Amino acid sequence: MALSKKPVTGMKDIMPEEMEIRDYVQSVIKQTYRSFGFTPIETPCVENIANLSNKQGGENEKLIFKILKRGEKLNLETAKGEADLVDGGLRYDLTVPLVRYYSNHANELPSPFKALQMGNVWRADRPQRGRYRQFMQCDIDILGEPTNIAEIELILATTTTLGRLGFKNFQIRINERRILKAMAAYAGFQEESYDSVFITLDKMDKIGLEGVSAELINDGFEKAVVDKYVGLFEGIENSDNGVLFLKDTLGEFLDNDAAESLNEIIESVESVKEAEFEMVFDPTLVRGMSYYTGTIFEIAMPEFGGSCGGGGRYDKMVGNFTGQNVPACGFSIGFERIILLLMESGFKVPGSGERIAFMVEKGITGERLAQVMKEASDARKEGKQILVVRMNKNKKFQKEQLEAQGYSEYKEFYKEELKH
Amino acid sequence: MALSKKPVTGMKDIMPEEMEIRDYVQSVIKQTYRSFGFTPIETPCVENIANLSNKQGGENEKLIFKILKRGEKLNLETAKGEADLVDGGLRYDLTVPLVRYYSNHANELPSPFKALQMGNVWRADRPQRGRYRQFMQCDIDILGEPTNIAEIELILATTTTLGRLGFKNFQIRINERRILKAMAAYAGFQEESYDSVFITLDKMDKIGLEGVSAELINDGFEKAVVDKYVGLFEGIENSDNGVLFLKDTLGEFLDNDAAESLNEIIESVESVKEAEFEMVFDPTLVRGMSYYTGTIFEIAMPEFGGSCGGGGRYDKMVGNFTGQNVPACGFSIGFERIILLLMESGFKVPGSGERIAFMVEKGITGERLAQVMKEASDARKEGKQILVVRMNKNKKFQKEQLEAQGYSEYKEFYKEELKH
Repeated sequence: MALSKKPVTGMKDIMPEEMEIRDYVQSVIKQTYRSFGFTPIETPCVENIANLSNKQGGENEKLIFKILKRGEKLNLETAKGEADLVDGGLRYDLTVPLVRYYSNHANELPSPFKALQMGNVWRADRPQRGRYRQFMQCDIDILGEPTNIAEIELILATTTTLGRLGFKNFQIRINERRILKAMAAYAGFQEESYDSVFITLDKMDKIGLEGVSAELINDGFEKAVVDKYVGLFEGIENSDNGVLFLKDTLGEFLDNDAAESLNEIIESVESVKEAEFEMVFDPTLVRGMSYYTGTIFEIAMPEFGGSCGGGGRYDKMVGNFTGQNVPACGFSIGFERIILLLMESGFKVPGSGERIAFMVEKGITGERLAQVMKEASDARKEGKQILVVRMNKNKKFQKEQLEAQGYSEYKEFYKEELKH
Repeated sequence: MALSKKPVTGMKDIMPEEMEIRDYVQSVIKQTYRSFGFTPIETPCVENIANLSNKQGGENEKLIFKILKRGEKLNLETAKGEADLVDGGLRYDLTVPLVRYYSNHANELPSPFKALQMGNVWRADRPQRGRYRQFMQCDIDILGEPTNIAEIELILATTTTLGRLGFKNFQIRINERRILKAMAAYAGFQEESYDSVFITLDKMDKIGLEGVSAELINDGFEKAVVDKYVGLFEGIENSDNGVLFLKDTLGEFLDNDAAESLNEIIESVESVKEAEFEMVFDPTLVRGMSYYTGTIFEIAMPEFGGSCGGGGRYDKMVGNFTGQNVPACGFSIGFERIILLLMESGFKVPGSGERIAFMVEKGITGERLAQVMKEASDARKEGKQILVVRMNKNKKFQKEQLEAQGYSEYKEFYKEELKH
């Protein structure tokens, strides 16, 4: 087979300019999250195929890169389908591996456990601009904390990080699965139609309240039910505090603490926040994953149509592995989107030290070469970035190239020190 | 299929204590290599299967995790063998992807190009203590530099990094493929038997010179040839400078510049080095990979039987992709072994800031909670690591747990400030 110079379809080589920004963003993220007491952990990129195919991953489960069994386990003659050929797959997110990790190591881990993960995930999506089949995810999760301290800490940590990266005027949109359901119940929808109702509700930002109403009626729901539902959204719109309005209106349809806790999250974050952003209650926020059980939230960036990250509470996922539920809540930053936004805005990594190119005449050898290397070594100890290169015939062109790499100072070394 | 709490066979979950050390080592490596002008890059973890199966990878090619074709490309009924089912694989090293990357982007990259890669690689080795099927590699490579500036810079950068991580009294053992070959030619071995001779030579540290001699004769080589070969090693042993001894002795069997250049590398590094280590010419150093064309080197650590990293010059590998050779030289640090050594020595990451646990009475909500969060936020701004946790009934036990996580200071918050 011929060698291929290109990366595999849909994945990309990362060039030096982008890497510099990625490294910087990673270091800001790690430093900020650490100050909030999050602990970095890592899981293998490969997971057992069973763990990736248990329906928690929704649509992502159709996009798995599957790994062939090896050695005696692979029996091509008797294989009837993919399942006989495959025993592992590349992870499509960091949540499934985290829950497996926690289930495996709960006895060794503190409670609550605050995990920070930065790692690649893989999805065989149709390749398109700015979306790749391998991409970095960056998640923080708190396991074992049932109260809204978890949500408050997750949102503060994430927004502080975004602020330190220079983002402002964004929103954290927040909702509660229990409020979503209570609103539907109050209006008179049957529980089995909630998913369908929420798919329509999710289109609110595109088709507006009237559009949602029309689509629901078109789907065959009773006009009275739809009107009552729409009325709730109008009520929220006309109230000072949508959450408290719902608490009063929904009455026994809503768990006693759901609205109060949500309100407390919004108010605590608003009063403590470091970054410039706004907390917004968004009763139309749905989020796709079926594993969410409570709060759900998303980052909305003005520079970017769509979400730049999100998360929520998933109190029942650990139970799938261990039989015993553990309260859990997580927030995932859209790392690749943030990098894209920074690249497009011409972002420069701050304070990346002095860079000097040592240009060494061809033919310098022996002691003279050691002298040059020693001088480079001394400058490096002072924190300078020193590039030792052979001098080209066309020095002017070479200097232009070096300037493009960020070297604005040069020092030339010749065989005889006199020329220097 | 049942969910599995364990990681896949042979791969491991990384626990918080190890991650802290890994993160620290990575940051020292990146910072030091950057000061030498190396530029971080990244390639996808998945490579085209053709690139992984072109014989450059030696034994590693038998250990590839292969990835199933997807969608229409996968046709199970007509598949006759693995090759029909697979189009990608997980990379087994970082050198093949680097060479592909360079071939693909040479026009956009400076010359010489100094690359730094830190990334996971996968090999389906038999699992054993301390060796895993997913592990981190950390490589620096210089492409486009034909002179020994490349070797000197690679060895200085690597050893400076090791020194800053606290390692000393190690050796860099160095040899030259051209010297290896010239010695064999001088003794009278035929070129087609070099590989077999070198496999025996490689056992020198285990079986000694006599053992090597006996095995070569046993393999059917002429006694006169073997004696002449053995005589060279004795001559090196008895000389002040083995490299210059060989230069004189081998005469026209050896390229004119090979010995001088090697000697210059050793002397330059010795006179400039920052870390405490020794450069040692080792005429028995072979290194397995067939792609090496010139210098080869290895890190020998007294704490660790065997090599802790190595590298060499591979001037003909880019040519496999582009048809045009480019001088290239690389050095790979044995990242996982270094982590293992640091873990076993009880290494503590230096200067990992003040850690304070804020213990919050159950039932604190509303404004009082916001107050606590504000205080945490202020302390975090000062660089402290603050963990906000709910207070347990058994405070003593909770504090012991927190201490194990590195929190030696506590602050307790109660509903009423008076109690505080």
